[in-house]
Amino acid sequence: MSGVIALLTDFGTDGPYVGAVRGVLLGACPGAVLADITHDVPPHDVRQGAYLLAAAGPWFPPATVFLAVVDPGVGGARRAIAAALGDCFFVGPDNGLVTLLARRLGLGAVHAIEPARGAGSVPHPTFHGRDVFAPAAAALAAGHGLEALGPPVTDPVLLPRLAPRREGRRIAVPVLHVDRFGNVTTALTPEDCAALGAPGGQGLALGGQRTPFVRTYSEGPAGTPFLLWGSSGYLEIALDRDRADHALGVGTGNEVLFDLP
Amino acid sequence: MSGVIALLTDFGTDGPYVGAVRGVLLGACPGAVLADITHDVPPHDVRQGAYLLAAAGPWFPPATVFLAVVDPGVGGARRAIAAALGDCFFVGPDNGLVTLLARRLGLGAVHAIEPARGAGSVPHPTFHGRDVFAPAAAALAAGHGLEALGPPVTDPVLLPRLAPRREGRRIAVPVLHVDRFGNVTTALTPEDCAALGAPGGQGLALGGQRTPFVRTYSEGPAGTPFLLWGSSGYLEIALDRDRADHALGVGTGNEVLFDLP
Amino acid sequence: MSGVIALLTDFGTDGPYVGAVRGVLLGACPGAVLADITHDVPPHDVRQGAYLLAAAGPWFPPATVFLAVVDPGVGGARRAIAAALGDCFFVGPDNGLVTLLARRLGLGAVHAIEPARGAGSVPHPTFHGRDVFAPAAAALAAGHGLEALGPPVTDPVLLPRLAPRREGRRIAVPVLHVDRFGNVTTALTPEDCAALGAPGGQGLALGGQRTPFVRTYSEGPAGTPFLLWGSSGYLEIALDRDRADHALGVGTGNEVLFDLP
Repeated sequence: MSGVIALLTDFGTDGPYVGAVRGVLLGACPGAVLADITHDVPPHDVRQGAYLLAAAGPWFPPATVFLAVVDPGVGGARRAIAAALGDCFFVGPDNGLVTLLARRLGLGAVHAIEPARGAGSVPHPTFHGRDVFAPAAAALAAGHGLEALGPPVTDPVLLPRLAPRREGRRIAVPVLHVDRFGNVTTALTPEDCAALGAPGGQGLALGGQRTPFVRTYSEGPAGTPFLLWGSSGYLEIALDRDRADHALGVGTGNEVLFDLP
Repeated sequence: MSGVIALLTDFGTDGPYVGAVRGVLLGACPGAVLADITHDVPPHDVRQGAYLLAAAGPWFPPATVFLAVVDPGVGGARRAIAAALGDCFFVGPDNGLVTLLARRLGLGAVHAIEPARGAGSVPHPTFHGRDVFAPAAAALAAGHGLEALGPPVTDPVLLPRLAPRREGRRIAVPVLHVDRFGNVTTALTPEDCAALGAPGGQGLALGGQRTPFVRTYSEGPAGTPFLLWGSSGYLEIALDRDRADHALGVGTGNEVLFDLP
Repeated sequence: MSGVIALLTDFGTDGPYVGAVRGVLLGACPGAVLADITHDVPPHDVRQGAYLLAAAGPWFPPATVFLAVVDPGVGGARRAIAAALGDCFFVGPDNGLVTLLARRLGLGAVHAIEPARGAGSVPHPTFHGRDVFAPAAAALAAGHGLEALGPPVTDPVLLPRLAPRREGRRIAVPVLHVDRFGNVTTALTPEDCAALGAPGGQGLALGGQRTPFVRTYSEGPAGTPFLLWGSSGYLEIALDRDRADHALGVGTGNEVLFDLP
């Protein structure tokens, strides 16, 4: 057992919230190794949280507990869940945050988390990260089973896929993420490209311009956006040592239009 | 003994300072578990540091050493102190940073830190976080006693409380913190509310408008600020999936005016 | 052996990249203690990365592995290297990032990293931090030798020093870093000052104005920039509880003009 608890939240790093969660985890599972994925998910953006969790999660070792909290419905009707993901675990709100990592690792048993079991006190209705999810994550990291947390859940919330949309000889492709370098990760996969008659992404173009397809950032032509397969498996638009998002005027949640070959 | 060292500073995360502190801690106490509260306390803002330390600190396990450095007077006449806080420890400047966590955990023995004892070299006058506080925190995390650090201090600096101020049928309440979501944490406690004739916060209003009192963010009405008890025990003003601070035009250090019932 | 892996990158903390690296490290070396220096090196700024690495690195314990990735040439012709630095190790791109820490700790054997040796899969051409450098760092932290990573390198890339430039009775001095407080770290060392006839920095002035030389921030005069020796060993320009960089209108990479005595 690894004892690794990987954290992803939209709490930011300038408030007391992540610290409180770390305190609870280290108190309840003293041997746990805490590892941040990010705490800078845009506030309440479950879909972006799901993307980031799935982009980093597969690189963690077996038995990792992913404690993921992007939870605009905290304290309301949404369930709290813990799930087996391959040989790892997810703990967080039942709002679809698990979707993309579940697609990568495989979704196993899902259980509701009943705070009454285990923790002594009533959870605060605005901070389940600290009072519900952290104790559950610590319990899993300490080797307890999912079934000890609460009853099985058979219908966890899963987000629909952000699918590329065909429009004649063009496709509208959602932007999944823009990174710190301005690289634009689109929702296009190698399978999409093959189905669209652009195997390996070859022949796609942006705005009527031939768009070079390269292997790595430094191979791209200076001053022109180019395409490559990004490290998370999606088609990426980049600019060598410059921001492709600014050049294209797009951000996360927008769509990019590709011309098909 | 937990060996947890919880870090809070105003050093930011883009410079070399937090890294240097981590290096010293891991060198002097190899088994220590380092856990960040935050390094984004606004520069020199001792009061905000005290708030954040007290909001996260109580969730850490027994024997945690809180290494807290917001220290505009570094290298000057202010003392360096280490203190027992309940079954935990504080290490930092003697400028009131410990105040609010001490109120929560209870302030025990306080000792001055004399760098000459223990560390080999003269501390740099601008970086006591690295050269004075980190070695002292590592010593405590390694199980050494407070008294080994230096002589007792009987008059540690404690900040006065930011008290709500009554003005006829209104109260002016300091804003303690605005979080990443725009939620506004005020200085009002349940005890204050009871004393003001608004037990449980019921009947308080903002700017002459009836202000709903709810249990959790998603219960609030759309588009209107509402009140709730925040996870740190203070009255909070929030807006569902929007920023209450912007709607009210307030920030940390400002005051909010409530109408009494 | 300490098992500490100290991380410095320009990946930022809002994407999935640092999380993926942490996952790989904890999978390949479960006992490793991960400690961040910073992930906020300005994108592609190798020189700034080298400065920050050297400012924090010397404070880490023996056997620390510095995993440093500021790598605009990722996937291209630049080599991946691992190096002995005193009793520590560097792992990162061969683009000069190691330069300043090597000057402090001493550069020992340097080896190229051949991903084929060890790791199972082909590294992704845009993410050597995850697929090349992290596995190598984990191997070193687990006690494997440099020579197992690849063949020796005899000509690692080292950056030229940013030297102060004399202009008559003035010197133009590069700004190495501006910290969160607005303190301006210049490239001037005590040795430079002695050679320039300003031993200990005494007698240097900014813009024709006498500039006080103090020991610590709170000793400086209110409202006027002053000089002191910073905690990394360089001459620093500061303003008590205010931003010297704004007062002087300078940033990292600019030059500051000093009048010689």
